[in-house]
Amino acid sequence: MINQNKIPQATAKRLPLYYRFLNNLHIQGKSRVSSKELSEAMKVDSATIRRDFSYFGALGKKGYGYNVEYLLGFFRKTLDQDENTPVALIGVGNLGTAFLNYNFTKNNNTKIEVAFDADKRKVGKTIGDIQVHHIDDLEGNLENISVAILTVPVSEAQNITDRLVKAGVSGILNFTPARITVPENVRVHHIDLAVELQSLAYFMKHYPLENEREE
Amino acid sequence: MINQNKIPQATAKRLPLYYRFLNNLHIQGKSRVSSKELSEAMKVDSATIRRDFSYFGALGKKGYGYNVEYLLGFFRKTLDQDENTPVALIGVGNLGTAFLNYNFTKNNNTKIEVAFDADKRKVGKTIGDIQVHHIDDLEGNLENISVAILTVPVSEAQNITDRLVKAGVSGILNFTPARITVPENVRVHHIDLAVELQSLAYFMKHYPLENEREE
Repeated sequence: MINQNKIPQATAKRLPLYYRFLNNLHIQGKSRVSSKELSEAMKVDSATIRRDFSYFGALGKKGYGYNVEYLLGFFRKTLDQDENTPVALIGVGNLGTAFLNYNFTKNNNTKIEVAFDADKRKVGKTIGDIQVHHIDDLEGNLENISVAILTVPVSEAQNITDRLVKAGVSGILNFTPARITVPENVRVHHIDLAVELQSLAYFMKHYPLENEREE
Repeated sequence: MINQNKIPQATAKRLPLYYRFLNNLHIQGKSRVSSKELSEAMKVDSATIRRDFSYFGALGKKGYGYNVEYLLGFFRKTLDQDENTPVALIGVGNLGTAFLNYNFTKNNNTKIEVAFDADKRKVGKTIGDIQVHHIDDLEGNLENISVAILTVPVSEAQNITDRLVKAGVSGILNFTPARITVPENVRVHHIDLAVELQSLAYFMKHYPLENEREE
């Protein structure tokens, strides 16, 4: 068993991407892949991919590439072996409702268990099997929950974050455009949909595709 | 003026992240930043940051770091100088509606101009100033539009993609869990919300935060 703490963070950050890409190859019935193919599809240079994969114990063979099944097995073990991670959703607007209806059914180890909103008309409703509580009752309903998805209005983002942290949440997936401040022991990942769109437009403009093919 | 086509793709991919992080520093009133601070916050190693920034014409000074304002100016020019990019939204469900209400008002150069759905009860409605058309009328309403946001059910993803491509769309932001196949000249960026949540949980488990601080 590889000691995961030995994987550099920059490499770990690429794990879910590798996993997604290799899973797609597997679904297509491909049994091997070259670092060049991976490089073109993922926009990560081949040297980086080869170094990353060496941490996973995968050694590519010249003229053969990497064994897709071996790598997938490694990623599954690494990403899924954790215990279940119960998640709280804060803010049942359009984006929040989309999360509840989707609720990561394809993931074994992450699931929204409880939702909160300030709108009394939403409180008590059940969306995608999850009950919506009033935001005033946040503190009493976060037992065992360490992860929160934040889809509240920008003006509420910091205030709610402070309450979440005080209640013991140590990981926040921030979908608001707000920058939130947290203590050192709390991890925030920020997904800015505007940035994602901007990035796509930038790449279309400056990196016209030729022979590469992206998933 | 730097020739942007000389920036490696891997570097370009980090542009929006750099931009977001530096913009936050600027808002906080900070005038300089070290590659170490950037490295810890962004989980990109310092050597990579220094190499990236050298492409931007930014040379850090020992004991001083980088000038935040200079870098921000560069990123603004690089990311915003393009002409407007009109965008089509396909699928006005919860996630699609969230996009229409948000509509990237902070971006100057990307804006949803038209939306489509298969549900006749939604057709003709105006959400966030944008009119919803029937998906049957897709082909007649995509004039000048090269980018589409895909928030349709998985089962429709490939079929709609084929129609978009045929109608001249060359960039797709895919929010469905489906893997879509496109011709070589079409760029697809895939955002899988389950992968993002999984990634956060993985990092919380394996990389407990100590003295680093993430935005």
